[in-house]
Amino acid sequence: MAWNAWGDPAHARQLEDSQRQLLVDTLGVSAAAPPRVERSALRLPPGALPEPARAALTAVVGEEHLRTDDAARILHLGGKSTPDLLRRREGDAHHAPDAVVTPGSHEQVQALVEICAEHAVAVVPFGGGTSVVGGVEPAREGHPALISLDLRRLDALVELDEESGTATLQAGLRTPEAEELLGAEGYTLGHFPQSFEFATIGGYAATRSAGQSSAGYGRFDAMVTALKVATPRGTLDLGRAPATAAGPDLRQLFLGSEGTLGVLTEVTVRVRRAPAERRDEAWSFPSFAAGTAAVRALAQRGLLPTAIRVSDETETFVNAVIAGSAAPEGCLSVVSHEGDPDEVARRGEAVRQVLTAHEGSLLDDEVAAAWRRSRFSGPYMRDALLDTGVLTETLETATSWAGLAALRETVTATLTAHLRTATSTPVVFCHLSHAYPSGGSLYFTVAADAGEEPRSRWRAAKQAAGDAIAAAGGSITHHHAVGQDHRPWMEAEVGPLGVEVLAAVKRTLDPAGIMNPGKLIPEAATQPPAVS
Amino acid sequence: MAWNAWGDPAHARQLEDSQRQLLVDTLGVSAAAPPRVERSALRLPPGALPEPARAALTAVVGEEHLRTDDAARILHLGGKSTPDLLRRREGDAHHAPDAVVTPGSHEQVQALVEICAEHAVAVVPFGGGTSVVGGVEPAREGHPALISLDLRRLDALVELDEESGTATLQAGLRTPEAEELLGAEGYTLGHFPQSFEFATIGGYAATRSAGQSSAGYGRFDAMVTALKVATPRGTLDLGRAPATAAGPDLRQLFLGSEGTLGVLTEVTVRVRRAPAERRDEAWSFPSFAAGTAAVRALAQRGLLPTAIRVSDETETFVNAVIAGSAAPEGCLSVVSHEGDPDEVARRGEAVRQVLTAHEGSLLDDEVAAAWRRSRFSGPYMRDALLDTGVLTETLETATSWAGLAALRETVTATLTAHLRTATSTPVVFCHLSHAYPSGGSLYFTVAADAGEEPRSRWRAAKQAAGDAIAAAGGSITHHHAVGQDHRPWMEAEVGPLGVEVLAAVKRTLDPAGIMNPGKLIPEAATQPPAVS
Repeated sequence: MAWNAWGDPAHARQLEDSQRQLLVDTLGVSAAAPPRVERSALRLPPGALPEPARAALTAVVGEEHLRTDDAARILHLGGKSTPDLLRRREGDAHHAPDAVVTPGSHEQVQALVEICAEHAVAVVPFGGGTSVVGGVEPAREGHPALISLDLRRLDALVELDEESGTATLQAGLRTPEAEELLGAEGYTLGHFPQSFEFATIGGYAATRSAGQSSAGYGRFDAMVTALKVATPRGTLDLGRAPATAAGPDLRQLFLGSEGTLGVLTEVTVRVRRAPAERRDEAWSFPSFAAGTAAVRALAQRGLLPTAIRVSDETETFVNAVIAGSAAPEGCLSVVSHEGDPDEVARRGEAVRQVLTAHEGSLLDDEVAAAWRRSRFSGPYMRDALLDTGVLTETLETATSWAGLAALRETVTATLTAHLRTATSTPVVFCHLSHAYPSGGSLYFTVAADAGEEPRSRWRAAKQAAGDAIAAAGGSITHHHAVGQDHRPWMEAEVGPLGVEVLAAVKRTLDPAGIMNPGKLIPEAATQPPAVS
Repeated sequence: MAWNAWGDPAHARQLEDSQRQLLVDTLGVSAAAPPRVERSALRLPPGALPEPARAALTAVVGEEHLRTDDAARILHLGGKSTPDLLRRREGDAHHAPDAVVTPGSHEQVQALVEICAEHAVAVVPFGGGTSVVGGVEPAREGHPALISLDLRRLDALVELDEESGTATLQAGLRTPEAEELLGAEGYTLGHFPQSFEFATIGGYAATRSAGQSSAGYGRFDAMVTALKVATPRGTLDLGRAPATAAGPDLRQLFLGSEGTLGVLTEVTVRVRRAPAERRDEAWSFPSFAAGTAAVRALAQRGLLPTAIRVSDETETFVNAVIAGSAAPEGCLSVVSHEGDPDEVARRGEAVRQVLTAHEGSLLDDEVAAAWRRSRFSGPYMRDALLDTGVLTETLETATSWAGLAALRETVTATLTAHLRTATSTPVVFCHLSHAYPSGGSLYFTVAADAGEEPRSRWRAAKQAAGDAIAAAGGSITHHHAVGQDHRPWMEAEVGPLGVEVLAAVKRTLDPAGIMNPGKLIPEAATQPPAVS
């Protein structure tokens, strides 16, 4: 993983001259791209891990698994939002963690968090480091030192229960390796978010990730049957049955907990037989409303394919430009079916009937093939755009079907208004990315002239968009989680009393407040209440 | 609802002489049935509601909605477990609530719980009163007075959102009335537990109920998209989207909270178009293992019908005796499909292929029709059996598919051993009642000679069965909830740290500990921690 860009440097992309010219013409981008300093120019503060803490942590993991060198610290500077990358391009490394610790077992993680609690050392659990919401930012929040707890060595398939159709996976396992381990036994997890190449099992659970095939395989949180969590107060093992009426579902407190309550070390998830067949289709709808209505009909009839998405007119056009192909009329929808050949045929036919009834037209197979080839490439393209002086970023939300059109309108208008300048017009587009019987999620992308101070311009646009989402009744995030960036809207999301509940849970499990400080739970609520 | 038996007295059942003789022959029941005192023989303690509390509560709801008469108090003596009914038959009413309060709005409920917190008056939220786990027991647990908060006046359909396929229902609405309100608009909830006639929307959510059609419509908790809760610390409104990554899912703390954290007053649930067609089928499998394997195959292939259950050999025989018909060979399975005619036909055919491949044989339609006629009658039959000197009760659990056979074996053996006497042999049978991709639930019924002290004999058997379930890794309850009766196993279910989390949430929302005392959360954990 590149330290100052997305992904594998070998896969970095460059724009063609014609694409660059199109950006200048349509967005009015200026020639100047944001700076991009060399890694050698970074100046890290000296590590601040106190010696007694260092000695105790080393006693658990061994010298080679507690690193304080610049190379390790630079790779744990935070996540991969556009502001994260812009800061790194500027050479900002003042917040580097004091050490990177790589435990090899649940028991080691448990021992580490207890030691850190004793020494008031903040702990940032670190999986693939792909957070786009500041979820792995090394934020000390008053603690004298901070470690990045990198779970990469927890990469085993612990157990495959073929009868129950579940697998227990260690939290640090990345998706390609998880698919390889499961694939060797004939199974798949079926979780394919854009961060697929790097993100980890624990990260998916901790952030309630949703993949491109969530319509068929389910959101990650819906796949989880059991969890093991190491908290400063001890270990929790949750999940004794596929479903239970034994009180509140405590697994649901740790799904989405983003490392603020403890470290997920093992996750038991549903797995499926690797599909024998896959069929991708591309469809066109005359409008975004028609495409959305079609997806709603499928979701409410229990007929969702394995994957389905609908781009609005602008996204349909932009994606065609990126792919160097002609844009289809209207709004592009990609549909994918996986399963036994019989099932793919049966479901495929039922879905085609519904899509056709909603004014859908089947397009050439090559359009769907182009989507599949490029489906993980968006973040690489962002780096190429930044190099060209284009600020590009995404945000996403979800609401009921009844609220979707108004939500799209207000977010689009808000982002456009805030990113416009005297000399440039931004492009804002979106797709319906995930669908449920009662609603769906919208995934927005913006491209604008980076100009001067792109970080503060984005911050203002993001603030306004978040407020618009909250006012429209949407959720502040459907699958990117809260981290630092969405924390200001948590009170709108669950109410002040809901925030108090979260803070009470945190105080119970993490009384010293060392677990991933500054994330998820609004600050005021994490202070212990005055004694009454 | 009868005060000392299940349901509508007009529907009370009596056994035929031949059935009674069969029970004497097979179970060795003695002639003597447990006592059954008249209601007029009950002696209630004087109401203990302090005058300031009474005045304040009355100011909220009005005189006619705060009742302290015997008739009202007797109808709120507790739930409908067999021990509950035996106690009432014995004339035990010492624990009657001091008053029954029937609020008419969320705002009134909010005001009532705040007043009760101020006056240290315990509050038992009361819906249909159908708990079989002591969930609505008026347990004071040190509080000087207790009210039963009967939600029957909260019986409105607040909103139907046809586009999103959701309905907002008030918590005190009973299922037949909910189906009537939704049915008038062409919709159904599809939730049909045995308690269907009496149980309420709020009760289903508070206990994570599962109905007979859960395979098709989902468990009740899975239908819920939003909740409104009145707690002593204020109101929570949770649920802004069909799915979200905005932190832990706090709805999941209130689903299954059984009134210990607050009062659910409104629930937004998924609704479906009322099905145009229904097809019931009865199948026979050569063994319970074969039937279970068939259901597992359907669940894992995403092919579950609307309803499916498999009885073991003994239950198959007993049900035939009760129905006065010949028992089919092996194990009876009932399968039901609902939906559009096309969908019923298509899914019906796919399911038939799987069942046939698992050694299933389709039986005469009349067998399925008999199941549908009698599917809510089990609790009425229990009263007739008690009148005949037969102790009958149920319990249920769930686990993974891999653990199901061993769980069934240990529970059956434990119950049989503990209910056997020198002169009688109990009958213990079960069915697979609910299925998921990763496992299923087992619903056990026992019938034994009531003999002397049936309550203490059942208590010992239940204790041993609960320990056996915990040791086998099952959940202590799949859909009956925790209440008083399963509270001893909560620590086994979620661990000591999980119990601490629940207690911390309760202290935050209900610092005075007035909400449904003695339920769900183990006692030690509900005490405030010593100041450190």
